[in-house]
Amino acid sequence: MRVAIIGYGRVGRALARLLELKRAGYPFRVVGAHTLRHGTAYDAGGLPVEPAWGTPAASVEEFLDRSQAEAAIELTSLNPESGEPAISHIRAAFARGMHVVTANKGPVAFAYAELMEEARRAGVEFRHEAVTMDGTPVFNMVRHNLPGVTVTGFAGALNSTSKVILEAMGRGLSLDDGIAEARALGVTEADPWFDIDGWDSACKAAALANVLMDARTTPQQVERRGMGKLTPERLAEIQASGKTVALVSRAKRTSDGVKLRVRAEVLEKGDMLAAARGTSNLLVLETDLMGRLGVFTIAPGLDQTAYGVFSDLVDITRSV
Amino acid sequence: MRVAIIGYGRVGRALARLLELKRAGYPFRVVGAHTLRHGTAYDAGGLPVEPAWGTPAASVEEFLDRSQAEAAIELTSLNPESGEPAISHIRAAFARGMHVVTANKGPVAFAYAELMEEARRAGVEFRHEAVTMDGTPVFNMVRHNLPGVTVTGFAGALNSTSKVILEAMGRGLSLDDGIAEARALGVTEADPWFDIDGWDSACKAAALANVLMDARTTPQQVERRGMGKLTPERLAEIQASGKTVALVSRAKRTSDGVKLRVRAEVLEKGDMLAAARGTSNLLVLETDLMGRLGVFTIAPGLDQTAYGVFSDLVDITRSV
Repeated sequence: MRVAIIGYGRVGRALARLLELKRAGYPFRVVGAHTLRHGTAYDAGGLPVEPAWGTPAASVEEFLDRSQAEAAIELTSLNPESGEPAISHIRAAFARGMHVVTANKGPVAFAYAELMEEARRAGVEFRHEAVTMDGTPVFNMVRHNLPGVTVTGFAGALNSTSKVILEAMGRGLSLDDGIAEARALGVTEADPWFDIDGWDSACKAAALANVLMDARTTPQQVERRGMGKLTPERLAEIQASGKTVALVSRAKRTSDGVKLRVRAEVLEKGDMLAAARGTSNLLVLETDLMGRLGVFTIAPGLDQTAYGVFSDLVDITRSV
Repeated sequence: MRVAIIGYGRVGRALARLLELKRAGYPFRVVGAHTLRHGTAYDAGGLPVEPAWGTPAASVEEFLDRSQAEAAIELTSLNPESGEPAISHIRAAFARGMHVVTANKGPVAFAYAELMEEARRAGVEFRHEAVTMDGTPVFNMVRHNLPGVTVTGFAGALNSTSKVILEAMGRGLSLDDGIAEARALGVTEADPWFDIDGWDSACKAAALANVLMDARTTPQQVERRGMGKLTPERLAEIQASGKTVALVSRAKRTSDGVKLRVRAEVLEKGDMLAAARGTSNLLVLETDLMGRLGVFTIAPGLDQTAYGVFSDLVDITRSV
């Protein structure tokens, strides 16, 4: 399968390396890569991991046309307030009859139902495993392994930066020191307040609710209270009482539709959500037939995000 | 799809209720049920959840022949030392060209590679999602959602009885009081020493290793040390140092093949394995491409075991 990559940063390179590693069993070929920073590269025979960049395509549309790819992989940076430009890139790929895999939570958080409808009309697949828990199966688990199950709610500790900061504050450090620690670990988004204010968690909540609960919501509709007002003193008090704090994304189906909230919650030490520490992430699903079950990932990195995209590509080849 | 159920106890009834509930979307029909205790029942049009039992079939072979089923569901009680008679029942079904789903860990722990080879030769499917974590996707997750991934090891807190007993002992109760508590919760096998000595955990370790790591092993080959010698005093000491104890099943690939062990391990409070409390179960997989990731199930019951069988049946209809 010929794939074109839109946005070729660290995840893009990790993916290219993985595709190269797995070429014998999984014949994907990167026939185009497009970046704002470096330019554009094409090779119908398959690009190397570090392509020789040529003149930038005038537009993503031009890039996709010239790439002749069967699937587009959307890896551009998130605009957390709109999901653009990723949403437009995905639409451009659908319009050209291309399947799409994205690792960008914006499109799934802001426009999932519309994009799925457009994919259906175009007769192509749209996949997004990596958007909430890197490559850990969440969407593909529900899709393939839980037939007949209705997801009635979820609770997730899905933001690594907040966990690193809270743990630092739990050791008596300031919020700023915690931010510095998260930066040193390489887990922090460009603006750490995106994590601290719970916006990243709200995007993930909306993405999960849109896919798993047909919520047709956006991150703006998530009731959100970040952890910016927590002090080391208050944290020390909470810990002294044998509890802990985590930024939790929750969803619940009500008679009014799906209710979503993000909050710095005080958790009992025995709460499963309290078990996700450091950069690990954990999600509990509430379901009708399977009760409560969940998945977690321990200290994932870029390679796991890239794997999520790879697993989606494989899944598309099995579905079509 | 016409299914025949061998062994019709509480899981069998839960499954029959689930199949009835889901009939509109998933057209499975129970055309036969066979028990040692009540007798045998057939109805090509579909049996009710509480069948009118007739004369027992003289053998499982006779039952399967007369049922005319397309898939056999093996739910008899486990003989934990041999995996029989379930293994023979499964072979009888394969010999008749029937797919098989089992919730019985014996066949997977004792004879997985041979059974898979026999299924392949018979052109049928063999599935067993429910044998280690009730219906939580473990085998189907690796099969469908982790393409190209090699499982290099695992660690699981997979035995509910031991957790209930350890928690009771952690509150200062005796081992016997802990056993009584586990019995009251309905999680204990007929003989609680099967759990306490780590034999159940060894069967689950062997089953996981056989399927996920092609270990071709048996429970006897698992290095096993139970929790029978732990005292409330020793547990109190461990807890006072901020740690906890769990019966853990571990596998690791070495140059000598897959090494398996079951042990009552002292865990740091922050260890993910320590997060599975009460009747909950948790499994961490170690992999090449996805690092460490895992699944858990919170307080599952018979309905979740039945769901595991259901999900396997659906998966078979999608695979064939």
